[in-house]
Formats: sequence, structure tokens, C-alpha cells
Amino acid sequence: MKKQYVTTPNIDEVSITSGLFARISKLVKEQVLPCQWEILNDTAKDAVPDHSIENFSVAEGNDEGYPSHCIANFKIAAGLEKGDFYGMVFQDSDLAKWLEAVSYRLMSDPNEELEKIVDETIDIIGKAQQEDGYLNTYFTIREPQNRFTNLCECHELYCAGHMMEAAAAYYKATGKDKLLKIMCRMADLIDASFGPEENKRHGYPGHEEIELALVKMYKATKEERYLKLAKYFIDERGKTPYYFDIEFEKRNHASHFSYLYPPYGMYSNGPKYEQYHLPIREQKTFEGHSVRCMYMASGAIDVARLTEDKELLDACKGLYQNMVQKRMYLTGGIGSTPKAEMFTSDYDLPNDMVYGETCASVGVMFFTKRLLEAEQNGDYADTMERALYNTCLAGMSLDGKSFFYVNPLEVDPVISRENPDRAHVLPVRPAWFGCACCPPNLSRMITSLPEYMYTICNNEIYVNLYIANKAKLQLKDQTVDIEVQTEYPYKGKINLTAETEGKYAVCLRIPSWSREKWKAQINFFEVSQAVENGFLHLERTWKKGDKVTLELDFEPKRIYANPLVSKDVGKVAVQCGPLVYCLEEADNGKGLQRIYLPKDAGLKLAEKPEKLMGINEIYAKGYRLKTLENSQELYVENTKWNYELVNLTFIPYYTWANRGENEMTVWIHEK
Amino acid sequence: MKKQYVTTPNIDEVSITSGLFARISKLVKEQVLPCQWEILNDTAKDAVPDHSIENFSVAEGNDEGYPSHCIANFKIAAGLEKGDFYGMVFQDSDLAKWLEAVSYRLMSDPNEELEKIVDETIDIIGKAQQEDGYLNTYFTIREPQNRFTNLCECHELYCAGHMMEAAAAYYKATGKDKLLKIMCRMADLIDASFGPEENKRHGYPGHEEIELALVKMYKATKEERYLKLAKYFIDERGKTPYYFDIEFEKRNHASHFSYLYPPYGMYSNGPKYEQYHLPIREQKTFEGHSVRCMYMASGAIDVARLTEDKELLDACKGLYQNMVQKRMYLTGGIGSTPKAEMFTSDYDLPNDMVYGETCASVGVMFFTKRLLEAEQNGDYADTMERALYNTCLAGMSLDGKSFFYVNPLEVDPVISRENPDRAHVLPVRPAWFGCACCPPNLSRMITSLPEYMYTICNNEIYVNLYIANKAKLQLKDQTVDIEVQTEYPYKGKINLTAETEGKYAVCLRIPSWSREKWKAQINFFEVSQAVENGFLHLERTWKKGDKVTLELDFEPKRIYANPLVSKDVGKVAVQCGPLVYCLEEADNGKGLQRIYLPKDAGLKLAEKPEKLMGINEIYAKGYRLKTLENSQELYVENTKWNYELVNLTFIPYYTWANRGENEMTVWIHEK
Repeated sequence: MKKQYVTTPNIDEVSITSGLFARISKLVKEQVLPCQWEILNDTAKDAVPDHSIENFSVAEGNDEGYPSHCIANFKIAAGLEKGDFYGMVFQDSDLAKWLEAVSYRLMSDPNEELEKIVDETIDIIGKAQQEDGYLNTYFTIREPQNRFTNLCECHELYCAGHMMEAAAAYYKATGKDKLLKIMCRMADLIDASFGPEENKRHGYPGHEEIELALVKMYKATKEERYLKLAKYFIDERGKTPYYFDIEFEKRNHASHFSYLYPPYGMYSNGPKYEQYHLPIREQKTFEGHSVRCMYMASGAIDVARLTEDKELLDACKGLYQNMVQKRMYLTGGIGSTPKAEMFTSDYDLPNDMVYGETCASVGVMFFTKRLLEAEQNGDYADTMERALYNTCLAGMSLDGKSFFYVNPLEVDPVISRENPDRAHVLPVRPAWFGCACCPPNLSRMITSLPEYMYTICNNEIYVNLYIANKAKLQLKDQTVDIEVQTEYPYKGKINLTAETEGKYAVCLRIPSWSREKWKAQINFFEVSQAVENGFLHLERTWKKGDKVTLELDFEPKRIYANPLVSKDVGKVAVQCGPLVYCLEEADNGKGLQRIYLPKDAGLKLAEKPEKLMGINEIYAKGYRLKTLENSQELYVENTKWNYELVNLTFIPYYTWANRGENEMTVWIHEK
Repeated sequence: MKKQYVTTPNIDEVSITSGLFARISKLVKEQVLPCQWEILNDTAKDAVPDHSIENFSVAEGNDEGYPSHCIANFKIAAGLEKGDFYGMVFQDSDLAKWLEAVSYRLMSDPNEELEKIVDETIDIIGKAQQEDGYLNTYFTIREPQNRFTNLCECHELYCAGHMMEAAAAYYKATGKDKLLKIMCRMADLIDASFGPEENKRHGYPGHEEIELALVKMYKATKEERYLKLAKYFIDERGKTPYYFDIEFEKRNHASHFSYLYPPYGMYSNGPKYEQYHLPIREQKTFEGHSVRCMYMASGAIDVARLTEDKELLDACKGLYQNMVQKRMYLTGGIGSTPKAEMFTSDYDLPNDMVYGETCASVGVMFFTKRLLEAEQNGDYADTMERALYNTCLAGMSLDGKSFFYVNPLEVDPVISRENPDRAHVLPVRPAWFGCACCPPNLSRMITSLPEYMYTICNNEIYVNLYIANKAKLQLKDQTVDIEVQTEYPYKGKINLTAETEGKYAVCLRIPSWSREKWKAQINFFEVSQAVENGFLHLERTWKKGDKVTLELDFEPKRIYANPLVSKDVGKVAVQCGPLVYCLEEADNGKGLQRIYLPKDAGLKLAEKPEKLMGINEIYAKGYRLKTLENSQELYVENTKWNYELVNLTFIPYYTWANRGENEMTVWIHEK
């Protein structure tokens, strides 16, 4: 394993020009980020908190669950306002994620007014920082004496990590280093407090995040200590005796989240919940809280790549394989249970009880982005795309005003309402959450999409995602302009124009779902070479204006789960391109679980530019098992079943729940 | 509605002579009751408590969950021992149920030694009673000042009810009235504390039970006040403003079960949980905690019948119809969620998440027994039989040494272990529970089985259950001896001999599953008359030795759920006689959820006298969907699926989980 020139584009170097993500980026810029700013300031009027227990509605002892108080916490910690802390112990991270997202947004579209707001906010953050560099509004306001005593639960390093990401992003966006310096002081304090030396704590975060953030700090400042500290946290995790046991004894069993996880809060959830059951290098399966898993693995790959640590990288690749082969929903969702938002066991993928947290799928993107930096294999990009186009996009309503935390594959609103096991499966998106991690996480992912679209390795351009854009890409030996035109994900044709001459490679991902059927041309001459590791490597001396055309297989397809997924046995799903489709009651009436798609039924694609902000629908002839007429019986003997013919209409999964409360299903009985 | 002569046999009047229930009755007498006595006294060695949260493992603040302490609590309350209360707030009821079961056992088989133990125990109970008649060890030891302040959660009236049932039973068994007098004093105190008068509390129990118990006290003592008090509790329930709201405010929101149901314990679960959302007469669906529902409806029918209250009876009948038509598992289990052990919504019957508490199905027997007393309709007995032969019997291992609280229809031990949503679905029976309601509830039902076997109305004998027995039945105008010989539930032939001459009716239930095909003869002459309300009324002047022969349809049958039960769409179950069958891994290998039973596969019955203490097995040719060979893919396109032929072996559901931890399923894919 040797360090190579590997990078992703700066955000200002890629301009998304049209199509689905042009619309969504605009929405995030014009609707989501301003709205989130209002929520952080408690000036939003429409935000309705979600009160279900899974979403931590009983926010820190106050069962009103009033939205944010996030900026207020900083002002109180800064001594600018009077009052008490309110919100989750990790409330600070909401602001951090917003600042990070806004920084990306400023990169692609500078805006003085917005920058001024950010600068003023950074001033408040600076004032909230303690003399020794410590920054965390919860502990500063409520428990100054208890800093770093409950890493297992209290998210101090997590919050610090998010603010470091924001600092690095804002520095990159504007060249202003005030926040970066604030976070360097915090990073230095953490570095002075944690490490192998005897006088330091031998701990690691309960919720991973700071590892990948410290790598960003290292990249922004070139300070080697930050990389070393990230590596320390990665390597320390899982050593015995467990740090969280020691810490738990030291604080006399005091716990923060006991109301949520009795009797000892997150500590009660055991080592797997926070991935300290084993050293990361020895972990073979993702266990516990799915978001934490993604953040852990992302930080670990960063460290592995920068320190040329093949063993660590291989461990992460093994974890990836376990996830995609045994623990991921068709929609790119992960986490099979609302209880502690966890992975459960191989092939245990219940469609109705699923968690599939939006943040976890955003985390899948973080993870696969870094895997692609370490090894340019199209399979990682396939998984990135699966998460992005399905669970991530479904996390937000089409109007950008409401959000899902949980992304189910099967919903019946009546059961969600009446069966408390399904209370987490909301049939409509709430505007905000007591635990508001997902909306700002989506925002920062969408605003930084260019970093996912391309991986650059030496003089090779890996095109991971097909999104219409103009890009200026910094290869190892030259800068290359390219333009991509496409109506992906609704059409499979991609035109790429090389705008810079020179010898470099354009590597087009051939998605696994198109591996059987695709066509590529350069300047209208067919390309005949083989796909390697999921990419078609077009290396040549390009002339300005050279055109590459790729046509992917956009026939609608039937998808089946591995028979070991017991909940999907006898069922089929429909996919077209990267989009998983679903049936919704609005198009197909009630009783979706009684619908059968015959094995031989054709799937017909139709453009619907007006529907759901522009989609392709898929039609098929199907059957619905009729209910028993005039029968009051719950159980019957050998009955002649009646079926009615139904014209099925499938819509892309990400567009579901935009037409009011209704049934939805991804998996359908096959006959 | 007019009061009629309606009764059930005294327990000593029916002697079970052979077959399944002869064995089980013996088991309860010789194994279960003595073992439970040891547990109540904390002298049992093998009892391993179940530590899952659903089973209240964190018993009252002590996370050791050590078995019982039940007798010790009484001794401490009596001043005979020093120490603190330990166990559930309703721990007293464990002893009460045991005393009741032992009383029934003494009726059929007097035993001086056992009676002596009971008398000594009653002495302790007497000493634990307070001067004013109050009896409850929790409040006496821990919170004497808080009596009757938290009816919503604290089960005082529930415990009193169970001890009243025990008192009435022991009095009936032995003629000794010491416990009866103790409970009269407690009933009098309750009567003085609750009622419509201004100086009394206008409350009702959080867990129904005392209503039906007061009716038993009324029957034992002829004291009308007890019936009136039962009626008061029935009628007061659900009136607004809700008593539990008033009480909650009065005690300043103090709560008992906040560790289990945050933040305010059972009060947080809302009115439906404890059926006070509406007056009982206005309730159309069973809501909330399923055991409470059964006890409520049982008490309500008792009151309705004794007070000739047709409106109340009709309400109960409506609730029954809702349950059997929309909210009951094929196995007679009720309660679709472990969260608060509740009913959810119509047709929401998930097989893997099911609660199906053993106590709830015992409650179904209480309820249907009383429905049969009010109206002799075979449908009620069909439901009683469904609950008895499937969920109730499955609640106990074949050796009587371990018990299920939860009775699932689909189990995968790996998922039960790794997915916390399924932690309540145990794949093997534990020996005891922190919340030990189910085992003694089973015991008292089994020991009082004669009360369920027959309903006597005027001069009609309704045979509800076919169990080999000799009975002396008190009809309105004469005493009639009959004998029933049968190998039911393994053979469909029933021989009934009238041993007393006279004019009376023998009414044989023709179960709904045999309505198409049955044959009855009197002295070898075919009976041609029609089935009315599920019974074949054979009214005549009987001669001693007259023989009735009934042959029921014991062909194995395919059963289907109403298509509105979405989890059973495309699936089939197998039943033979009253027994629901299942597939178990021990006979069929792993991967039960990949098995298909072809539509045309024959079902072949075979006697297995040696297996599982004697069963009939059912064989069929089926297919198992093969896993993907050499494929690491989780999702695949149009694949050619491979099936392997498997010889399926079905066993009766009640015998599952007697051969170690393994997969089980009741519903199977049909092809």
C-alpha cells in the first residue's frame, strides 16, 4: 500500500448544471438552509417536533420537545444571554453541521450577507469557548466539573468533531481562520487530554466522528498531531479492559440517557452498540448503532490511507463487504431495529420494523467516498449511488420542508398509529425532530456532492455519479475541464465532453445493474474494452471537444433478495437505473400487501414530467387478492380465492409520502 | 334477558379419566404445583429468572431479578420475619393463584398434608392483614400511607381479587372459612372505600380482576354488597373526568412503573391501555393490555348475567366478535405487541412480533366460559378450545418444568438473540419469570378444567370440550351421570354414555372446523337433526346405558387467514381437529421461512405415540427455496430459483420448543 495522488474535486470546481440534483441543490440552498437557520434560532414557525420516543422527543427532561435552542445555548455559554441549556447533549452539532453545509454552499456561490451571519455566529462560538480551549455548551452551562467523564454517552468529542469539520470547510470556503483557530485550540486541549501517555485519558468517543474530523483538521493545518490523535482514537477503541467500563466506575455509575436506555443509559446498551467490543482491526461485522459504524469506518479509512496502514484498510473493506452482502436494505438503508438504531444480524432485514436512518445512509456515502479514495472500485460507487438515490433522497420531502429520520420499505399508516412497535415508522415526514441530526446531515451531503461525484487518482478521473455538470479537475499533472450532460437518473444516456487536451484517463462507472448491457462510444466510435473493477478505463490523449457517450441499461428490472432474507422470500421489487421503485396507495389503492405482480407481467416505463416534480413511472398488470365477501371469518378452510386485476403504478421510492398519509411498499408478492 | 338455571360442574363432580388432559392434570398436580410452592418459598434451585425487560426483569429496582420472595413478603408484613418487600408490586397474586389452584386440586383429590400447608399459609396471610381489614404486602411494608392512591398502577384491587378467588375456592374445597373471612374483611374495607357516595373514592382498578372475584365472593357468601360493588367497578370505568387523571394529580404525578414506562409509568400508556377510554358499554373493540381486557369482560358478563343487564352483555358480545373476527391469532393468542402487551388494530397480527401472552389466552378461557353461561353458542366454545389446545398448552413445556410468557407463531433463535425487537420472543421456555403471572394462571386453569368442559342450562348439558371423563352433573331437575370416552384431540371419535335415565338434553358441540362433515349416532342409529348455534341438541328421555357416538372431521386441513391479515397473505397453516400444527427445525432443518407447501400436496396423518409424549404428526411433500450458490449478492436480477424437495413434518403447535432451541413457524408459503 503506497500513498498516491488521490483527491476529490473542490466544491467550487464542479458546477451542477441541470437535472434532479440541480433542483435539489437549489432547494437546499434556498429553502432548507434558511429554514434550518430559523430553527436553530427558534424563529421558525412551522416546525413541528416529532414526539416519538425513538426520536428522543423527551428532550433532556423537558417533555415539550420544543425544537432547537441551539444558538441560544451558545449565547448562554458565551455569557451573552441568561438561561439554561436546553436540548440534546449533542445539540451543538446541529449548528456545526449547518455551518459546514453553509460553507460548502458559499464555495459554489459566494454570498456576503450569508458570510456575515456566519462570522457573527463564529464570534458567539468564540465567546462560548473556555479559556483552556474547551468548547461544548452543555458541559459549560450544566456540568463544567464533569468534562470528559462520560465519553460513552455525552458526545463531547462528537460535537467537537462536527465543529472541526465546519471550521475546515469555512476556512476552505473563505480563507477566514477564526473558527479554525477556535477548533485548533479545542483539538489541542483534546490532544493534551487523550493519548497513550500515562497522564492522559486512554479513551475514545462514544459516537465516532472526531476521527474523520481530525483528519480534515490535519489537512487544513498540516498539523501532524491531529492525524496522530485520530489514529490514537481508532487504535484505542476496543482494547481491554474497556475504557467505558473504567469511566463508568469512576463516575459512580452516573448516566445521562437513563430515561432512554434504563438503567445506565447508552452504557447499558453494551460494547457492540458503540463498536468497542473489539479493536476495529478485528471486527468482521458492523455491530451496534449504524450511524456510528459508518463514521467509525470513514475515519478509519482516512487514517489507513494517510498512514499507509493496509491492515486497517482491509478491516474496513471486510466490514463493507459484510454490510453490502448481508445487512443493507435494497434502498441503501441500514439498521434493522429502532432499538438503539442498530444493525442486528446477517440477513435480518424486516421491511416494516426497519430503522434505515437517513443519517446512516448519509454515512454510507461518507464511507464509500473514502473507500473509493483508497481503492477505485465501482462497487463502492454502486453502493454510494444506492444510498443516495433512495434512502438519502427519501429523507427529505420534495419541497424540502419536512424530513424522515426512519425510512421504511413497508408502511401502513393505521398500524404505525396503533401498533407501538411501529411508532417509529412515520407515514409522513415531520418538519423537525427533537434529535435533529438527519436534516442538517442531508444538507451538508447535498451541498458537498461534487466530492462524491468524482475520485481523482493520479491522472485518472473516476466518474462515480452521473450528474449533469461542468468540472475543472485537478489531476496529478494537469487541470482538466470536462462537461457531463445527462438526464440521469431518468435516462441512461450520458454525454461527456473533454474540454482539455492531454493524456489522462476518464473512468466511467458501469453500474452492476448495467453490467450486462451498456454501450460506450468515443467520438461515435464504439469502445470495445472490458470493464475493470466496475469502471471502463478510457485512457488516451484527449483532444479538446472529444465526446464520450455512454448508454446504460434503463430497462425496468425485477429484483430479488437473497433467499436468506426471510422477509423477502416470494417477493419482488422493481428498480430502474439506480432508482428503487415502490407502490403507493395514492396510485394503487389500499391493500398493497395483497397485491401480486405476475412473473410474466411486463414493466413499462413512462415519463411523467409533471408528477412529483418529474419522474418516470413504471406500469404493470397485477392482481389484488380480494377480501372475503360477506365473511366475518378470520380463518377459513380451503377457500377459492378471488383476485382482481389491477393496473399497478410504481413510483421512485424517494418520491413516496409526498401526497399525504398512505400505504407504501417496496417488496411485492410475486405470482 | 331472564335469569335461568345456569351452572358449571363442581370440580369434584368431573373426573378426567384418560388422554392428554389426564396426563397434564397429573403433571400440574405432581410437578407444577409442588415446584411453584418451592419457588414461592425461594427454596427452588433450578428456577432461572427471565431477564428481558418485557418480563419486568428489573424487578422493582433490583436488577438481580431473583425469583419470588412472595411468602417472605407475607411473613414480613405479618411481623413474623424482618426484611424488606421484594418483587413486583403485585407479587401477592402469585401466592393467591397458587392457593386457588391447590384448592381446585384438593376438590378432586383431597390431601391432608397439603391442606395443612395451606392452613398454615392462611395463618400467615391472616397475620399480614391489618386491623381494618387491609391486605397487601407491598403497601403494608413499603408505603402504608399510600394505600389506594395509585389504582392505575399498583394492583391493590387486583391482588385482592386474586386472594378472593382463592378464598372462595378453598372454602368450596374444604368448607374452611378462615381465608374467606379474611377476604370478606378486605372486601368490606374496599366497599367502604369505593362507591358512588360522596365520601368514597369514585375509582376502579387499573388491572381488572376484582370484578369477577367479587362475584365469586357474592356466590360464596350471598352478600349482595359484593355483587353491587362489582357492578360499581364495571359501570364506573370510563366515566369522565377520568378517575386516573384525578388520582394522578392528587398524588402529584408520583409513579410506580416509571422505569418501565417513562415518564409516568402505566399512567403514561394512556386510557386505552387500561380500558378506561370509554364506559365498557360503549366499547366496540378490545383495546390495550390484552389480559386486562379478558378479565374486564369476564367480570362484566358475570355482572350482566346476575343483574339481567342485556346492554352490558351485548357490549361484551360485541367485544368478543371484534376479537375473534379481527384480533386473534390462529393459535388463540391475543396481543400483537410486546409494548404494554397490547391489542393494536384490526387484522394487525404479525407472527414474529406477536405477544400472545399465555395469561391472555387463559383469560380467553375465562371470557368464553362466561359467554357460554350467558348464551350457549358453540362459537364461544370453539374459541375456548382454540386458546386451550394451542396457546395455553404451549405455555408450558411437556415436562411441566418451564413456561412461555410469549407465544410466537414464527421464531428464529438467531434473530431473537440479535434483534432487540424480538428479545421477547424466547426460543426456549424459562423456568420462571420476574413477573410470574403465567405459570400459576395455567395451573389454576388446568386444575379447574371441569368448569370449562360443561355448561349446564336448566336440563341441558352442553359439552364444550371433548375430554375423556366421568361426570355427575347437577341439572335443574335432576343429577345426571355421564361418561365420555375419547382420544381427542388425536382422534375424532367421541363416545358418550348416559348413566342416568330421565328427560334431559345432551348438547354436543360440532366445532366449526367439522361443520361440513360429522356423524352422530344414538345407540347406533344415525341422528339426522340440524346443528343449532354450534350444538347438536339431543333431547330425549334417556335410558341408563344409552350410547351417543360422535365422529368429527379429523382430516388435516389447510387454513388461510382473511386477506386483510397482511402478514399471512400467500401463506397457509395446517390444522387437524382443534390442534394447530407447526414446522420445527428439529424435523425440517433450518430455513423454515424458505419452505413452500404446494397447493396440491397431500397432508398425511400418522400416529406417533412415542414422540413428544404422544402426538399425531402430519407429513407433506414440500419445497425449500435454495440459497444462492457461490453468490455473495444480497440482491439479484431475474434469477432462476432452485428448489429442493423436502419431506415436511408438522407437529402440534403446543409441543414446539421441547427439543432445544430451534426455528419454528406456523404459517408457511403456499405455492
